[in-house]
Amino acid sequence: MTRQPGQPCPIEPSDPVQDIAHLGNIELLTPRIDLTTAYFRDLLGMEVVHAAGPSVFLRGYGDYAASTLKLTAAPRPGIGCISWRTTSPAALDRRVNAIEAAGRAGRWIDPECGRGPSFRFRDPDGHVMAIYYEEAPYRAPEHLRSTLKNLPMRYTGRGVNVRRIDHVALLSRDVAADRRFMEEVLGFRLREQVRFDRGAVEIGSWLSPSILHHQVAYVVDTRRVGGRLHHIALWVDNREDVLRAADICSEHGVFIEAGPAKHNNSQGFYLYAYEPGGNRIELYTGSFLVLAPDWRPVIWDEAERGTGVYWGGALPESFLSYATPDAAAAAPVDAARVPVFDPS
Amino acid sequence: MTRQPGQPCPIEPSDPVQDIAHLGNIELLTPRIDLTTAYFRDLLGMEVVHAAGPSVFLRGYGDYAASTLKLTAAPRPGIGCISWRTTSPAALDRRVNAIEAAGRAGRWIDPECGRGPSFRFRDPDGHVMAIYYEEAPYRAPEHLRSTLKNLPMRYTGRGVNVRRIDHVALLSRDVAADRRFMEEVLGFRLREQVRFDRGAVEIGSWLSPSILHHQVAYVVDTRRVGGRLHHIALWVDNREDVLRAADICSEHGVFIEAGPAKHNNSQGFYLYAYEPGGNRIELYTGSFLVLAPDWRPVIWDEAERGTGVYWGGALPESFLSYATPDAAAAAPVDAARVPVFDPS
Amino acid sequence: MTRQPGQPCPIEPSDPVQDIAHLGNIELLTPRIDLTTAYFRDLLGMEVVHAAGPSVFLRGYGDYAASTLKLTAAPRPGIGCISWRTTSPAALDRRVNAIEAAGRAGRWIDPECGRGPSFRFRDPDGHVMAIYYEEAPYRAPEHLRSTLKNLPMRYTGRGVNVRRIDHVALLSRDVAADRRFMEEVLGFRLREQVRFDRGAVEIGSWLSPSILHHQVAYVVDTRRVGGRLHHIALWVDNREDVLRAADICSEHGVFIEAGPAKHNNSQGFYLYAYEPGGNRIELYTGSFLVLAPDWRPVIWDEAERGTGVYWGGALPESFLSYATPDAAAAAPVDAARVPVFDPS
Amino acid sequence: MTRQPGQPCPIEPSDPVQDIAHLGNIELLTPRIDLTTAYFRDLLGMEVVHAAGPSVFLRGYGDYAASTLKLTAAPRPGIGCISWRTTSPAALDRRVNAIEAAGRAGRWIDPECGRGPSFRFRDPDGHVMAIYYEEAPYRAPEHLRSTLKNLPMRYTGRGVNVRRIDHVALLSRDVAADRRFMEEVLGFRLREQVRFDRGAVEIGSWLSPSILHHQVAYVVDTRRVGGRLHHIALWVDNREDVLRAADICSEHGVFIEAGPAKHNNSQGFYLYAYEPGGNRIELYTGSFLVLAPDWRPVIWDEAERGTGVYWGGALPESFLSYATPDAAAAAPVDAARVPVFDPS
Repeated sequence: MTRQPGQPCPIEPSDPVQDIAHLGNIELLTPRIDLTTAYFRDLLGMEVVHAAGPSVFLRGYGDYAASTLKLTAAPRPGIGCISWRTTSPAALDRRVNAIEAAGRAGRWIDPECGRGPSFRFRDPDGHVMAIYYEEAPYRAPEHLRSTLKNLPMRYTGRGVNVRRIDHVALLSRDVAADRRFMEEVLGFRLREQVRFDRGAVEIGSWLSPSILHHQVAYVVDTRRVGGRLHHIALWVDNREDVLRAADICSEHGVFIEAGPAKHNNSQGFYLYAYEPGGNRIELYTGSFLVLAPDWRPVIWDEAERGTGVYWGGALPESFLSYATPDAAAAAPVDAARVPVFDPS
Repeated sequence: MTRQPGQPCPIEPSDPVQDIAHLGNIELLTPRIDLTTAYFRDLLGMEVVHAAGPSVFLRGYGDYAASTLKLTAAPRPGIGCISWRTTSPAALDRRVNAIEAAGRAGRWIDPECGRGPSFRFRDPDGHVMAIYYEEAPYRAPEHLRSTLKNLPMRYTGRGVNVRRIDHVALLSRDVAADRRFMEEVLGFRLREQVRFDRGAVEIGSWLSPSILHHQVAYVVDTRRVGGRLHHIALWVDNREDVLRAADICSEHGVFIEAGPAKHNNSQGFYLYAYEPGGNRIELYTGSFLVLAPDWRPVIWDEAERGTGVYWGGALPESFLSYATPDAAAAAPVDAARVPVFDPS
Repeated sequence: MTRQPGQPCPIEPSDPVQDIAHLGNIELLTPRIDLTTAYFRDLLGMEVVHAAGPSVFLRGYGDYAASTLKLTAAPRPGIGCISWRTTSPAALDRRVNAIEAAGRAGRWIDPECGRGPSFRFRDPDGHVMAIYYEEAPYRAPEHLRSTLKNLPMRYTGRGVNVRRIDHVALLSRDVAADRRFMEEVLGFRLREQVRFDRGAVEIGSWLSPSILHHQVAYVVDTRRVGGRLHHIALWVDNREDVLRAADICSEHGVFIEAGPAKHNNSQGFYLYAYEPGGNRIELYTGSFLVLAPDWRPVIWDEAERGTGVYWGGALPESFLSYATPDAAAAAPVDAARVPVFDPS
Repeated sequence: MTRQPGQPCPIEPSDPVQDIAHLGNIELLTPRIDLTTAYFRDLLGMEVVHAAGPSVFLRGYGDYAASTLKLTAAPRPGIGCISWRTTSPAALDRRVNAIEAAGRAGRWIDPECGRGPSFRFRDPDGHVMAIYYEEAPYRAPEHLRSTLKNLPMRYTGRGVNVRRIDHVALLSRDVAADRRFMEEVLGFRLREQVRFDRGAVEIGSWLSPSILHHQVAYVVDTRRVGGRLHHIALWVDNREDVLRAADICSEHGVFIEAGPAKHNNSQGFYLYAYEPGGNRIELYTGSFLVLAPDWRPVIWDEAERGTGVYWGGALPESFLSYATPDAAAAAPVDAARVPVFDPS
């Protein structure tokens, strides 16, 4: 064939097409909105950009969108709406059609804090998700403008200095069903899995819409509650930042559940700490990009998976048993522990 | 419309489609093949995996392909073939068609070191490039197998320990022509630019096929030679690794031209050192991912660009005047300087 | 001989005895006390513990004394009193006698901010110094108490997070005279020197009272003003902290004169930035401890010294020509540059 | 009084005098001399400088003495002679007298590998120690000469790159007796202690001859064997180096017992790994200098001490129960585990 440069190339239906660009926004539910807000602002160094009704909107200094983390006051901790941005308006249409074709009900939600209309639905396990395309880039006010033209906001040097949101890890009563939904309906790619019993039992799956190692993980919910959160992960630039975070959390009475240590799966370097509302927060860096378009998912069995740690302290029992909202009658002491730092 | 999950979604011709997955292989020409090989192996910690005729093939410990850097003996230093992997066989076909449609001659090259057939062509300035899809993942021999199942090769802890190749920076007599070629024919996205004279003169452009900030840069060749290399960049995991690299290079008599310092454009943290053959090598980390599907290129004018440095020592005159092959009668003393480390 | 354990061992007059324990306090003069205070508190993360008259007293989170940095309002920038703590009351007596025996007038100064009486005098070039022994360890208020029993104050995670003061670098019209004074009268040990003209001209000398590489440096004052300051150095825990400091200073419009880079002399990793009052501040780490009791001073000649940089950008001309108070009619633009951060 | 500058100041017997300069050499016993040598040379990056009879002599790149680590073939792992350098010949005489006065037999040992005659004795628990003054500074051969005039040996960039030896931790049947011996007879200063039962039981004591936090620690030997080693510690320059060490050890099958993590006592950042002979090796950095001449020892009780970890994984049971030589019939599997790296 012959064509003129600049003209679009013909696309074949069999081509892999990336319709989901990235994780756009995480809504976290908390029974202690003030302390939770202070935790993300004063300790983790995120910026509060907006407040409306029961919600406070924050961002990392490197996030290009106005807000990437939404904190909402609620009776119990847990995950609210997980929003994904699509790569184009057509991609949004395609995925809305795919979601409906998959028999999952959804509805359109009004614009919010710089984001346009989003289509809200639930994954098989019941987590609330949304997809959207329209997004107004963040315009920093004078006092938060960076001296770097390509950085959306000043690097403030406050606390942990989270750069951006990275991923969410969800519990599921049927990991395979949720994993297939993300693969087939949203076009995510499977990166790694933990499978027990000679591969018969899918314990966890890690998926991504881009070359990022993963932006969503599903791990089996042994208590079969549904719609629960294991943790959300925030990105810092290097391992030293994670170590600084351990010092900062320790000095402020924040409960550190695990780390600093290195995962075998994803190679991520992590610190897990609870925010005052009881949700598990991961401060995360390292890992690796998956550049191979034909990446073959890495499958870990019981022996290979071990404790999930490459080096560093073993993950405690609570890491396997605690999630939000908590299935137990009462939240564990750890989750109830209130940071002593001054929110003012 | 209704459809079954798992079925491909209809793609519209207007959709942005990523056909180029990533930079797959860099061929570097050197008049000192033995010293150059020792430099990448012993100092930078890359692994030699193969040798054939005048060429030696190396890899970074994190590269998934068998080889990502090819060193070829030649009378003068410079860049050889720059190979890009496509996202699918169909993507390869589309881009071959687009290249031919753009009026650029090309030909198919035989498989090499784990890579399948590649289609070789030249960019407008004359740099040799190739695109391919087939790639056999690296299988490490026993003594190089990692204890991490998702790492293709052992982290050896030798020297700088380069993780993977990152990008190439090329000189061009017509930056706009090369930039348009990469955008329109190969589907790259423009990330940042330096434009002088109120935007009239395009001094440099940085582009990427993925969410990586950039994998190719074109900067104006003031001497109008054509087909020249400014530098190739190798990725290390964090800033401390770049500082270690400065210690290692200094101890081995390797000429450090600039850095450690931080660019304003790309926010990359860098060290520029010459390999024994005279080519400029960048050890690189930091920078940022471009997750926004509608990223607006950042344009820097004379004043904003300054020396191209955010903080750290200013870039020396040689950074603007020296490239390989060198246009001057003789290579500068710096480039001729031979590292004193023992290649054995 | 026989003796009982616990009894003191007989000391011979010829024994080397360390009478000066460490640099105890630095007084800095500034024409912009409010901005200078905000700089050390908000950007460098030091803590304000006291204010009296024209002075504000600060500390690093790791300093054991109540205050180690005293900022005093003055018409021009420069160095005030440099205080050294002795190892014992007897050591204080010995050194007072030695100072007087050296023909240098001195007088006793009243206790201040946790420190007991100090004996104040001038070094040959005219810098004001003092020695003292009594020092009350810092007792942090509840909100600044660390969760580490052996850390005097909480690691707050604010800005650069300076740990402690490290050294002072002074200009001198007669480096040899000041160096000899510190060696012979105060018992400092010479560590490194820069000597030009085949060793005939002493350009600079670095000395220490302990195994720290150096706590005072004298460099020739080419303008022969007398009593001037080149810089004071504050310690951070690692090189990544210095890089963070470069980001923080850059974001707040603080003038960075040199670095991040590595000195050849002392092997220190540094960043030089001006505080709003015009004084040069070094953020410093790395270097090395001198454990050898018979260390032979390292002498650098013109060629070996080079620019004083092991790797990283060369030191600018201002590094050699600018000191406080400035000898020029007006302070250089750099020194006049006011950080744009909000002192509130 | 009046005196001339340069004349020694009169010393009073009551003055604290530092007669021990620093830890000079550690002798380690190993049943696997070849693998142990390869471990320190290839993985930890130490340099082999000499071999004689059953012993191999090594050094860290920053050590000023020719050799600081002596490996000696023996039937069982454990600690050999621990050598301390004095600050002067007179200091050596004083301490020899003090040791004999304390009723501890000793004898003079011939010079070895750059060190002059040393006086060998045993501490109360039976560990072999020696003190010496004469020491010839290391002269690196051409291929190991550093480009830094003040660095005794090239920074080779091999593996972990240990800079210098830091401290030894010994088990004792009577911690108080050994602690008093080091304080009263050798002039060490007590830095921190762990005391249980309201202070009645001395579990551990950390002491130092200089401003280094500690160079020797005694911890109770619950099995009451005598003369045993808990670990030796080697210094690396920053926390990132310790993390790299964890990667390197993991890739080479070296058993990591604990860390990377941060101690509460000493604030040290550590990694504990076993060398092939079964001895516990600590890779160590951070901690803090004790500049206060009147430092008050920090005492930790059961509750404050906790697991001895400030943050990071808890120390395993083996950390409390395993020492060398091992009291158990057989060494634990961990200790028997042989690194898989190729010693060649």
